Amino acid sequence: MAAAGGSKTLVEIFYDVVSPYSWLGFEVLCRYRHNWSIELRFRPAFLGGIMKETGNQPPAMVPKRGEYMMKDIKRMAKYYQVPLQIPKDFVGSVIRKGSLSAMRFITAVDMTQPQFLEPVSRELWMRIWSRDEDITQPESILAAAGEAGLPSALAQKLLAMTSTPEVKNRLKETTEEALKYGAFGMPAVVAHVNGEAHLFFGSDRLELLGKVIAQDATQTPQAWSEGQRFTFPHPATAGYRERKAEREDTEGKLNPQGQGWGTYQEWTLKCCLPKKRGP
Amino acid sequence: MAAAGGSKTLVEIFYDVVSPYSWLGFEVLCRYRHNWSIELRFRPAFLGGIMKETGNQPPAMVPKRGEYMMKDIKRMAKYYQVPLQIPKDFVGSVIRKGSLSAMRFITAVDMTQPQFLEPVSRELWMRIWSRDEDITQPESILAAAGEAGLPSALAQKLLAMTSTPEVKNRLKETTEEALKYGAFGMPAVVAHVNGEAHLFFGSDRLELLGKVIAQDATQTPQAWSEGQRFTFPHPATAGYRERKAEREDTEGKLNPQGQGWGTYQEWTLKCCLPKKRGP
Repeated sequence: MAAAGGSKTLVEIFYDVVSPYSWLGFEVLCRYRHNWSIELRFRPAFLGGIMKETGNQPPAMVPKRGEYMMKDIKRMAKYYQVPLQIPKDFVGSVIRKGSLSAMRFITAVDMTQPQFLEPVSRELWMRIWSRDEDITQPESILAAAGEAGLPSALAQKLLAMTSTPEVKNRLKETTEEALKYGAFGMPAVVAHVNGEAHLFFGSDRLELLGKVIAQDATQTPQAWSEGQRFTFPHPATAGYRERKAEREDTEGKLNPQGQGWGTYQEWTLKCCLPKKRGP
Repeated sequence: MAAAGGSKTLVEIFYDVVSPYSWLGFEVLCRYRHNWSIELRFRPAFLGGIMKETGNQPPAMVPKRGEYMMKDIKRMAKYYQVPLQIPKDFVGSVIRKGSLSAMRFITAVDMTQPQFLEPVSRELWMRIWSRDEDITQPESILAAAGEAGLPSALAQKLLAMTSTPEVKNRLKETTEEALKYGAFGMPAVVAHVNGEAHLFFGSDRLELLGKVIAQDATQTPQAWSEGQRFTFPHPATAGYRERKAEREDTEGKLNPQGQGWGTYQEWTLKCCLPKKRGP
């Protein structure tokens, strides 16, 4: 697949909102896309299908690994300043209830209203992986769509679409595409560099991903150095200044010790966090 | 466990030379120890025992995960400039033959000649994970010990020790200690900070490890800032200048494209690589 848009490297992220590491990878790539000069393409897919097809099992099936994972997720979320919280009933919310209806809704958004793909995905993560709320019922999905700014009538229409073969097949196809790239879990990040697809599993190979992107011949030296020359706040982030005031208290919660997190992380946090919720 | 040596944070790395990610973690921590102001303690343990006790399985048991792991190891090794190569017969060398005799020998070194623990471990990794050589036969182990500078008579004596209950029990105890900290694979890195043991699995949580170390109350601001103020070459690395010339061609092989790797990685590479081998 060729890079879209001249000097930008195409990077795809295959994700499922049931996966906390997918959320971390999603947010971090949303932050880096301006600096790395990448065309970031969101590819909603179904983790259950990937696990079944590859014979993989959730890491928590080995009890000690599960215990560690809970600590790791908390530390990673704090480090990357994503407001992630483990659901109280992890097995019930994540393993049993799953994400099929949510991922079908996101797929319908992707097919017809792609400009809402990023915020709808984020609001569903905010429900299951931050506020411990349901994402399987129609009203839960509609609430997330509303938070993302999708007009109510349109959200209803997309919800109806989720039972059509078109949406079901599209989700299957995207999942199969991830499998074709070698995915066995999520997130699966695929960087298209010099005619080759490079798969990175998880949210923890950012240094390798950055190195591969830097080797892309379609990246002009200008694009790369412009991407690296960011200011605070980044000019590409519309509305940063206007939204700053209303986010002050959210920031306070995320950074209770008042410790410094570095300038880059500070602005990415402010750029990417979902809007503050009402009283 | 209290921090050893005043202002230095105690960091333990539990490892087995059969594990390639252990080698990466080991080399990277060897490089960072001067900068992070840590007391790095090597804890040779037995990966087979950890997998059995926790019910964990090698990642390669899921075929797609195994395929990915091979690519990931190569990319990580190149990025961190560790001369790691996948053995041709991976299953035979790594899974079937294993590392029990090698880890017993390393344990004997740890018990009686701890100053050789780091180089002997590295030379065994160089055999199995760089030159695709055996590490199970007595002559293989003695050859690694010789490369590490251990006198021949002493190496023979340590080899004889490997069949004693003292050495066998010590390896079991270290493995049990890793399990007690929550390990389910290797490397298992344990940072002792403010009276708490923080487990990090694998070689890819360096950012989190660095953050935890920086929060250690036993780290004086002076020690931390001195650690970060490194020069090229680092003054703590004895013999760097003398050994530089003989390493030139090794560097050429490791960095075939002649790409820049950054100053910090350059010097750490030169500090940590095993000595160039004969003609």
